[in-house]
Amino acid sequence: MQSYEHGGDIYRNHVRVDFSVNTNPLGMPAAVLAALRENLDACEKYPDPHCEKLRQAIARFEGVPEPHIVCGAGAADLIYRLVFAQQPKKVLVCAPTFSEYERAVWISGGQVVYHALREADGFALTERILDDMTADIDMVFLCNPNNPTGKLADTGVLKSVADKCLKNGATCVLDECFLPFTHGESLKNLPHVVILKAFTKIYSMAGLRLGYMLCGDSDVINAVRDRTQTWGVSSLAQIAGIAVLEDCSGWIEQTLKLVETEREYLTTQLRGMGLKVYDSDASFILFRAEKSLYAPLLKRGFLVRSCANFNELGEDYTRIAVKLREENAALITEIGRIV
Amino acid sequence: MQSYEHGGDIYRNHVRVDFSVNTNPLGMPAAVLAALRENLDACEKYPDPHCEKLRQAIARFEGVPEPHIVCGAGAADLIYRLVFAQQPKKVLVCAPTFSEYERAVWISGGQVVYHALREADGFALTERILDDMTADIDMVFLCNPNNPTGKLADTGVLKSVADKCLKNGATCVLDECFLPFTHGESLKNLPHVVILKAFTKIYSMAGLRLGYMLCGDSDVINAVRDRTQTWGVSSLAQIAGIAVLEDCSGWIEQTLKLVETEREYLTTQLRGMGLKVYDSDASFILFRAEKSLYAPLLKRGFLVRSCANFNELGEDYTRIAVKLREENAALITEIGRIV
Repeated sequence: MQSYEHGGDIYRNHVRVDFSVNTNPLGMPAAVLAALRENLDACEKYPDPHCEKLRQAIARFEGVPEPHIVCGAGAADLIYRLVFAQQPKKVLVCAPTFSEYERAVWISGGQVVYHALREADGFALTERILDDMTADIDMVFLCNPNNPTGKLADTGVLKSVADKCLKNGATCVLDECFLPFTHGESLKNLPHVVILKAFTKIYSMAGLRLGYMLCGDSDVINAVRDRTQTWGVSSLAQIAGIAVLEDCSGWIEQTLKLVETEREYLTTQLRGMGLKVYDSDASFILFRAEKSLYAPLLKRGFLVRSCANFNELGEDYTRIAVKLREENAALITEIGRIV
Repeated sequence: MQSYEHGGDIYRNHVRVDFSVNTNPLGMPAAVLAALRENLDACEKYPDPHCEKLRQAIARFEGVPEPHIVCGAGAADLIYRLVFAQQPKKVLVCAPTFSEYERAVWISGGQVVYHALREADGFALTERILDDMTADIDMVFLCNPNNPTGKLADTGVLKSVADKCLKNGATCVLDECFLPFTHGESLKNLPHVVILKAFTKIYSMAGLRLGYMLCGDSDVINAVRDRTQTWGVSSLAQIAGIAVLEDCSGWIEQTLKLVETEREYLTTQLRGMGLKVYDSDASFILFRAEKSLYAPLLKRGFLVRSCANFNELGEDYTRIAVKLREENAALITEIGRIV
């Protein structure tokens, strides 16, 4: 089960630049680093089990009531807690998508069924998914924008999925962890939908483990809140989260501008080499070459995400993060030498 | 479910000195603080899902094979993962003891039965527990030394419990989180026993969330390893754990010396006031007064652990941590004014 299925394995590879992880190319906000540095002695105290101040800060930032929020050690933690709490029997996920949804369901003993996105549609989510939402499906996971394609879903389609879930008594989970990198709209105001958000990507805080869930259904919130130990979110993660929400104005705008420019640069360069690049709305790009680029790029110190273990994709697909120009240009040069 | 049941609530009380949490009075080792300070940029990277270097360091420190180790976000995290993985139907815990065992079992839908420790025995664990280990018990939790009494169990009794578990096909869990504060012996070499250990208490790292489980049964290890998200232990927790195991020689000896001296001081002083103090082997002391000391001490800025919500105890019982002399003396003065 625990084979390493994600990007970011800088621990067992010699990596100069990590393009396999989609965190913010700007890194971590300086305000977070300063808050951590000033509060290292918080490591000695038990964290607040209720994440009270953090949830207040999230409530203000998101404009949602505090009781609709539960915090976790990353959005991934909340995926497992939701699945373990509800123990769904049959869960619909897209293919390809982030693999933690299906892993959580497998571990919980549930069955995963797939809605195959079509390459011909640029892997876009379409109304076709409604046909796969049979009455026996009790949970649906959608990642918006999707990972690894970077594609935003049409809001109308998402709302149709949410409506059909409500009608069928299924739980609709929308993973919006990458949404702040796009111009997409959050569906957090649909009261029956479960929204996943993280500090991991947009604030480059992957190592701290901090995410949250928004839901208007208190039964869902309470079940997920209780499905873990008392002290599930570390002191430093809480401090970092509060710092970022209080003191990072302009961060998202600055990120969006950089990501758009660099995504455009990478896309143009890769297409210029004759590679098939899928339109992305996010901070990463999926493209297809004649062969796997993973090993030859790693030999040169560039770690990229091979898509060999994504359903519906294969080793000829590669996902890369959008990084800073110098790094992006270096990667393009290396890819040019290989393809 | 999520009522605040533990010590350490410095977030909703005005606290000058926290005697309610039993972490090391020496605080966090300087080597840990230095390692954190030097590696704050690790917050930007996903943590190693396999905790490879940390598990290697633990294996050397404990003298156990690496495959027998699984790391978690505190020992509490591992309690829940074990219970969620095995879903025991009927679990035996002592009364009084640490409440996370029973909370995990309740959340998992299991039944908790209690072995009542006797005040007449100074709350010591005796062979009597074997009578409560009926064939339908599928998991037993023992905390050694026990919390909140601080009492070490007799090794012979523990081995009898472990043997009976093996015979009955029950899982025997020994929580040794406070063992480093005592001269007690670890039972980590019994291959069928599940041992819980934490950095939380002995290294005062409660806010970082780091613990580990040792077990010779690979089915148990694999199930607990998989019963969580991919990135369950934060980057900083891994860094702190490695730092402490590589560079803290003398720490435990120094701690033991301090704790023994100060425990003796507190015990003598409290007994001198006519209070009933139970013999403790650990870094905290259970005692009994005529009334609850919680509110009057809190009014003076001293947070202690009321034992009102411990089974078999009541609000007239108080648990206090052993701290530095100045703090201990200040607490004794305040208690003297109240009782």
